[in-house]
Amino acid sequence: MQGQRLERLLGGVYGPNRFYTSKLDRAGIRLDALQLPRDLSRLPLTTKTELVGDQIAHPPWGTAFSEPIDQYTRYCQTSSTTGRPLRWIDDNESWQWMLECWKTVYRGARVDRRDRIFFPFSFGPFLAFWTAFEAGCQIGAHCVPGGGMSSQLRLAMIETIEPTVLCCTPTYALRLAEVAAENRADHRPLSESSVRVLIVAGEPGGSIPATRERIERSWGARVIDHHGLTEVGPVSFECWEQPGFLHLNESEYVCEVLDPSTLEAVPDGQPGELVITNLGRTLTPVIRYRTGDIVVRRSDVCRCGRTWARLEGGILARADDMINVRGVNVYPSALESVVRQFDEVVEFRSTVRRAGAMRSLSLEIELTPQAADAPGIATRVTQQLREALGLTIPVHVADSGSLPRFEMKARRLVIEE
Amino acid sequence: MQGQRLERLLGGVYGPNRFYTSKLDRAGIRLDALQLPRDLSRLPLTTKTELVGDQIAHPPWGTAFSEPIDQYTRYCQTSSTTGRPLRWIDDNESWQWMLECWKTVYRGARVDRRDRIFFPFSFGPFLAFWTAFEAGCQIGAHCVPGGGMSSQLRLAMIETIEPTVLCCTPTYALRLAEVAAENRADHRPLSESSVRVLIVAGEPGGSIPATRERIERSWGARVIDHHGLTEVGPVSFECWEQPGFLHLNESEYVCEVLDPSTLEAVPDGQPGELVITNLGRTLTPVIRYRTGDIVVRRSDVCRCGRTWARLEGGILARADDMINVRGVNVYPSALESVVRQFDEVVEFRSTVRRAGAMRSLSLEIELTPQAADAPGIATRVTQQLREALGLTIPVHVADSGSLPRFEMKARRLVIEE
Repeated sequence: MQGQRLERLLGGVYGPNRFYTSKLDRAGIRLDALQLPRDLSRLPLTTKTELVGDQIAHPPWGTAFSEPIDQYTRYCQTSSTTGRPLRWIDDNESWQWMLECWKTVYRGARVDRRDRIFFPFSFGPFLAFWTAFEAGCQIGAHCVPGGGMSSQLRLAMIETIEPTVLCCTPTYALRLAEVAAENRADHRPLSESSVRVLIVAGEPGGSIPATRERIERSWGARVIDHHGLTEVGPVSFECWEQPGFLHLNESEYVCEVLDPSTLEAVPDGQPGELVITNLGRTLTPVIRYRTGDIVVRRSDVCRCGRTWARLEGGILARADDMINVRGVNVYPSALESVVRQFDEVVEFRSTVRRAGAMRSLSLEIELTPQAADAPGIATRVTQQLREALGLTIPVHVADSGSLPRFEMKARRLVIEE
Repeated sequence: MQGQRLERLLGGVYGPNRFYTSKLDRAGIRLDALQLPRDLSRLPLTTKTELVGDQIAHPPWGTAFSEPIDQYTRYCQTSSTTGRPLRWIDDNESWQWMLECWKTVYRGARVDRRDRIFFPFSFGPFLAFWTAFEAGCQIGAHCVPGGGMSSQLRLAMIETIEPTVLCCTPTYALRLAEVAAENRADHRPLSESSVRVLIVAGEPGGSIPATRERIERSWGARVIDHHGLTEVGPVSFECWEQPGFLHLNESEYVCEVLDPSTLEAVPDGQPGELVITNLGRTLTPVIRYRTGDIVVRRSDVCRCGRTWARLEGGILARADDMINVRGVNVYPSALESVVRQFDEVVEFRSTVRRAGAMRSLSLEIELTPQAADAPGIATRVTQQLREALGLTIPVHVADSGSLPRFEMKARRLVIEE
């Protein structure tokens, strides 16, 4: 089945899609000599850098699409944490395929037509939750867009219209809780709200235990993590029965886990880079796309009965997010999993500086107004970081409200060098 | 045909829709004794105040819907220029009906699958352009959402991805032109941009000659006005062949024009209030809805060949926007049509104050940085206003950047009393 779909995909790509045609030619691949899925690993890998480079060389759309540009109806772009945004276009059929992938996420999160889903963010050109919104309408849920509003207004709407589900970043779920706490008099506690599930995405937080626990406690609701990429689609969702594991939608995506240096497949249980081929986004597919996400795969059958492989602990890190400080590899998610254990910390930011040949890492934390003994908390955060990472990281307490807040993807790592 | 659809509509409403059932009962209407469309005028009128009151009495949804709440998939609310927002819910079928109405607007604006449409605003819970966006995707146009971005970023996107069509408020079309002019070095002139049509809505500006001319000059593009209401749907669009006239989509809406005081039908060519019954939004219809929009209808066949009635000069005023100043009735649109004739004025605001028994009206204008002789311009605006309205209105020049800017509906009339 997968073999046939892969063959159809490559057949549609070779010729009209200049980007992949040239990649296949350069790799000396003859499609009719391939046996799929067995020969999948003979196909060249694709990187984001290549795709961005292609768009720079052939602005604005690049050459990685298979039909004339007027066949396309949708436009998205990546949030471009680093560098230029990657533009991504879809036709109605591929878009519908993504909506079907989202319906799988909703089934996993036990969300159905009886639910009311609130989307507390402005709908920009990021794929993020556009597909979630439309898929929600298609399954018959009541979908409420919350663009162009303050957090206060969104909280008021949550009280009035009583959504049962929220889709947002983990950061913004916590931000809403922070604003609600600041305005206790205006709002009933979020833990008593109608919300029973938060589907979070865009950052690893949903699978970082300290972060998800804090969200679940604030909202009195279940967190279901989800992960997807603009250029790939909605890929995975957390198992309801076995929290902390993301199911890969292997009906629609071919997922490999490779050693990022040797590019060889790694065995189950070993960390590696997630590499994805999507089977239904036929006019703008990605073939063996290096996501940059470091994951650990488990292929045994899940407690829930699903046979799809799972990612243990979600997205563990972004390959390019790793920073080496005095010989220690540090991932931002490792910092977050320590910092979020402190209830008193509402926001944080880490900064990497270079002093001569040495790199140093420091951390700013912002505390709740109720927090007493700020220096003591800072000391305890430093201690916990040393225990978790083996590094001594100075922690400073920042003024209340001084650190940036985020609605979409948070940027809490500053590199000054 | 209209008679049959009206009968079907009323048949579906009577019983399950508590709001309309009670209205019909109170009016002593027996549906089986009605002959439609002849007896339309026997049906009771509906006002926004009634609908808002119903939602206050039965929060949050009111009783003006015909199916259990879990049948609904969409949520919108009015922009609530005054008072509470009115919430409006739709099922997928009614929503699709609105998309079909928007396709009619696109045909009128000569927009088709070859176009790329940019939507420069955050997608909030206002109906405004959600329906435009989805209808655009369905006709196969390339639709680009621009939520959560600065005007600068939106201008950069317009340069990069080259949309041919923009959907926005007239105010925001001018605001983008203002920002482009402030940043001449960064952008090529908008008049040389790829945009060839601007579909504007949300305010009367698109049919105010001085406003539309200024937009058309700034953008080197054609303005097509459009008008719709959250609780009604997308109703009308400007005729390409005969600018200044809005065609009413009489296939899907029953449109009447009534004297707002006597509630009798007014003849063609006389101003009156537009009253609308929508035929396809079956689970949340409005029946004989008083829009509050003052219009002049023309029913003769248009130069373009369409037999649908037209609104001459668009929406002339909102019935409740009229202010009486020293015995003179002033509509905000009349002020706008004078002020927009001055190229030097980038933004304005009018204020109504009460001093004892007297009401006074004053005007603030904000000038382009290039404008010389500010006091002279203020004097000329006063003169023009006196000629147009017969009132002496003091005009003050406000500091550059001091007046509010708007992305969605502008609020330029301040009432201090």
